[in-house]
Formats: sequence, structure tokens, C-alpha cells
Amino acid sequence: MLGKRHNVLAGAIEGGGTKFVCAVGSSPHNLSWTEFPTGDNPIRVLAQVTDWLNEQQRERGALQAIGIGSFGPLDLHPGSPTYGYITSTPKPGWRNTDVMGAVRRAFPEIPIGFDTDVNAAALGEYFWGNTSGLSDFVYVTIGTGIGAGGVAGRQLIHGLVHPEMGHMLLPRVHGDTFAGVCPYHGACWEGLCSGPALLKRSGMLAEALPPEHEAWALETQYIAYAVANIACMLSPQRVIIGGGVGNAGRLGQNQFFRLIREKTRAALSGYIASPALCEEIGDYIVPPHLGDNAGICGALALAQIALNDS
Amino acid sequence: MLGKRHNVLAGAIEGGGTKFVCAVGSSPHNLSWTEFPTGDNPIRVLAQVTDWLNEQQRERGALQAIGIGSFGPLDLHPGSPTYGYITSTPKPGWRNTDVMGAVRRAFPEIPIGFDTDVNAAALGEYFWGNTSGLSDFVYVTIGTGIGAGGVAGRQLIHGLVHPEMGHMLLPRVHGDTFAGVCPYHGACWEGLCSGPALLKRSGMLAEALPPEHEAWALETQYIAYAVANIACMLSPQRVIIGGGVGNAGRLGQNQFFRLIREKTRAALSGYIASPALCEEIGDYIVPPHLGDNAGICGALALAQIALNDS
Repeated sequence: MLGKRHNVLAGAIEGGGTKFVCAVGSSPHNLSWTEFPTGDNPIRVLAQVTDWLNEQQRERGALQAIGIGSFGPLDLHPGSPTYGYITSTPKPGWRNTDVMGAVRRAFPEIPIGFDTDVNAAALGEYFWGNTSGLSDFVYVTIGTGIGAGGVAGRQLIHGLVHPEMGHMLLPRVHGDTFAGVCPYHGACWEGLCSGPALLKRSGMLAEALPPEHEAWALETQYIAYAVANIACMLSPQRVIIGGGVGNAGRLGQNQFFRLIREKTRAALSGYIASPALCEEIGDYIVPPHLGDNAGICGALALAQIALNDS
Repeated sequence: MLGKRHNVLAGAIEGGGTKFVCAVGSSPHNLSWTEFPTGDNPIRVLAQVTDWLNEQQRERGALQAIGIGSFGPLDLHPGSPTYGYITSTPKPGWRNTDVMGAVRRAFPEIPIGFDTDVNAAALGEYFWGNTSGLSDFVYVTIGTGIGAGGVAGRQLIHGLVHPEMGHMLLPRVHGDTFAGVCPYHGACWEGLCSGPALLKRSGMLAEALPPEHEAWALETQYIAYAVANIACMLSPQRVIIGGGVGNAGRLGQNQFFRLIREKTRAALSGYIASPALCEEIGDYIVPPHLGDNAGICGALALAQIALNDS
């Protein structure tokens, strides 16, 4: 369960497709940070990460636990021979990488928490952000890819593997023939709405795209379809949307969220009779309170709850 | 959690759009049954139900608990003033009906479990059927409407309201212009694939539709898109599909499931690297072990676990 967190000095590792962020502290308010480019050599970057954590330990005192939130797909089944691995990623050099093992060998005596980057971010928002006190919510990141972490009944959702919500299939906006960029599904959510999709559709990065460009109208419409589906499937009490595209560049975050809320409400057509999905939808679909730090704060939370299982 | 069931004599009520099924027993193997048409007079049918349960109690001994699995939408929040009500249903006469209160007044001394018909069915399959031992799974019923109950981390999913998976939005099969029958969303999953949708599309009931009719190809394709989305969103270890359309009439259940499995695998394109979604998909998408009795057996299970909270 999410409820039991220990406020102790811990290490946090956020493994992303571009960089590994590392931090040490006991809360988001007293973190020391650093980062390393992810590159294509996992042995090197994981050594940089563990060396830095060791240095911090000498400066700030003994770490009580370490949390790792990583890009995936991951093996999250404690009984499995590849538990703690990044498994079938297309990312060069990273396929079948034993991330947890590398950290475990450097810190053999302390509990280590391991989960997806998006499950970690969901947890970060639960402890220090926008979902505090809720039992059911979803954290979505829209950037290089689209991923989501989900909490149901105060537990992170794992199941068969872990959710891959970015690959859900969506209806097409009438007249939109863009083929999408997902190598597996073409026009799945990620294929239609990730940063690379927006770039391919418009020829511009999200940061540069003018607010009146049609690509923003399509982007927010597809996100709204996806949020409507999340509401139907998981019945969350809140949906948080972060990530680079979620920062919404020149469109502005206010307008981005206003459009998504309006279109989600339209897509649901009042079927689910809850104020949260009608007049209170402004509190239902929100940016992360922790902003771009949700992931690393979540890794810290993973560390602190790992003590429960140790 | 789902794990704690008490094998005691209990009452079970399955409230459906057409009929209310009632049963008394301690397991699916020793149930006495009856049923009453749902009609448009909740006071009458709920009196019939509670009178019958009282008769059974005189014959078979004191009921230790009662479980109710009902069509919805329902208020499932124990603190709410309308907890235990059917809320915003379009079903004539049933809007804002205090189902649980009617049963509580007749049986004031014993615990009463209350959940959606599909959550109940999911629970029935967990205790006596096809999902025993699993932590994450989904039960889908395709009939007059489409609904689904989900279990994540050995808990039924509730959240804001409860899942309404039948209303997820799906991509269109190229060239299919059928408008769908959902009064809220037109061509959502239920709008495209429920029994009434199949009837409107083909002019025939599922039972009569020839196996080679194009409507079966579309039906199984859209179900496959929906199951692929369920796999991406909830990462279940198994998906059970029941209900009247799930019996598949002249197409036959074997062929119906073979088509859905094949098309789900194609829709996922190997992205989620799990044997369950590739070579073992025959065990992943299955009919209910309890057949049409999953719902009433699930209501019995709701009764038996209600003792935990009492």
C-alpha cells in the first residue's frame, strides 16, 4: 500500500531515455542532485550513478534505502530471474540490462525499490503533490513517448507486466490521415501525440509550434479521447498530465489544459454522472504539482516505501 | 482484499436489466435459486426478493450475510448519503433506487455486500472459476450492454465511481460507417458491439446471425481492439468474456474466441513482450468457467467477503 513512507535519508534514481537523474535526501525540500547522459553504455552510466551515490553517502550520512524509477519495459516480478531488468527496449545498448543488480552490488545492505518511471512519478505526486489522499489516480507523461502510472485502491498497478497506456488505440479525428510514428501500432496514442509525432505532423517541436496551429487542436483532441478512456477503464479520481509536451510550449499550459478538459467532457457526454467529470473537471485533469521533478521525487518515495518490505 | 472468503450460508442477489436472480447457499454447488422480472417497479421486485430470501432462511437456516451485484451506475462510496443506490440509470422506474436500503431493512442484523454486477462476476470467477490465484484480471460481459469488472492487486477497482469500460472509444475499422447505438457516445465499444448494436447492424439477433456474416468479423475486430486497450491500460493477467453475445450463437464459442485472440494479438503487434499475449493467448482471453452463473455466484462471494468488514 502507498500509505507507509519513512522519512529517512535515501537515494533516488530516475532512469530516462535521455538522462539519468540521481538525488539524495529525505524529502523534495532537501535533495542534492546530479545527472548523467543515458547514452548507449549502461555499465558506464550505472557506475557513474552508484559512484555519485557513494560520494553523497560519505558527505551526508548512510543511505537507508534506494529507489529506482526507470524507463521500460521492466521486469517487476520479484520471483523472476530477470527481476529488476530493463527488458525489450529498442534503446541501443540497454536491452536486457540488470539495472537493479548494478545498484544492489554497490549497496548490498539496504532495501532497493524498483518500478517504472511513471509509477514512480505517480507516487511522487501522491506523497508531495497533486494526488495526496486519493485512492485511485493516473499520472501520464507526454514527451519522447507516452507512458502512464496508475494507482488503484492505494496500490500501484502492475499486473501481467505493467501498464503501457501510451499504446492504447483511439478513434480518428474525422479527416486526419496522419500515419502516426509508433513502430508497433502506427497511430496509437503515442504514435499520434508524442513529441516526435507532433514534430512529424507539424515539422516543429512542441516548444516552437504556434498556438493556432491545427496540430495543437488534434493533439488536445486525441489526449482528450485517451483521458476519457482512462476515466472509463480505471475510474480514477484524478488524472495528472506531465512531460515535455505537457508543458505545452507557446500554446501555454493553461490553454492546453483548458482544451483537454473541454474535449474530455465532450467525449464523455455526461455518461459518468460525477461532478468531477463535469463542473469540477478543472480539478480532475491537472499538471503535476512537482512539475518536471515528479519522477525523481517518486524515486525517493520508492526508496522510502521499500523499507516496508525489507 | 479478495483473499478472505467465509464459507457460510448466505443470500445472493444479481440485479440485471431483465431479471433479478436470487440464490441461497454456501457455494455454487448447493444453491437454491429463483428469479423475478426486473420490470419498472423496484419496490415490488425488491419485496419479492427479500420475501423469497426470508422463506429460504426459514427452510435452510439463518443467512450470515447477503451480497448484491447490480446493474448500474451505482453509488459504491460507503460514506455517501446515496450509498447502495442505483443512481442515473435510464431504465424506467429505477433511477435513484435504494437497493441496499431495501435489503438492509429486511435483514437489519447481517452484513450486506454491494457492488456492480460485473465486479461481482469477476469475484465469482476468482473464487470458483477461471481467475483463481490471479492478482489482476478483467471480467467483461457483452449482452444488452457491455460492462466490465476489474481486479488490480487483488482488489476490485472502484475509484471515482466504478469502471464503465463498455464506453471506451475505439478506432474504426476502415470503411465501417455504422453509427453505433449508444445514446451517449454513438460508436463507443457498447455502441458498436452490444447485442442491440449487432441487431441494428445486421437485422438479426446474435443467436441467428450466420457465422459467415460480416457483422461477426466486425464484432470480433472491435472486441479485439477493446481487449488490446484493456491489456495496455490495466495489464491484467487474464481477460474473461461472458454475456449473451459472448455465447456467440451460430458462430460458436470456439470460433468467436479464436477470432478475438488472433485479432487482439495482431492489434498489440508484439509490443508487450509477454508469452501471455503471444503464444499463450489461448489462456489469456477465455469464456467464464461459471458460464451464465458468474454473476449470481459472484453475489454469493460478495456476501461471504462482506463478513470481513463487519
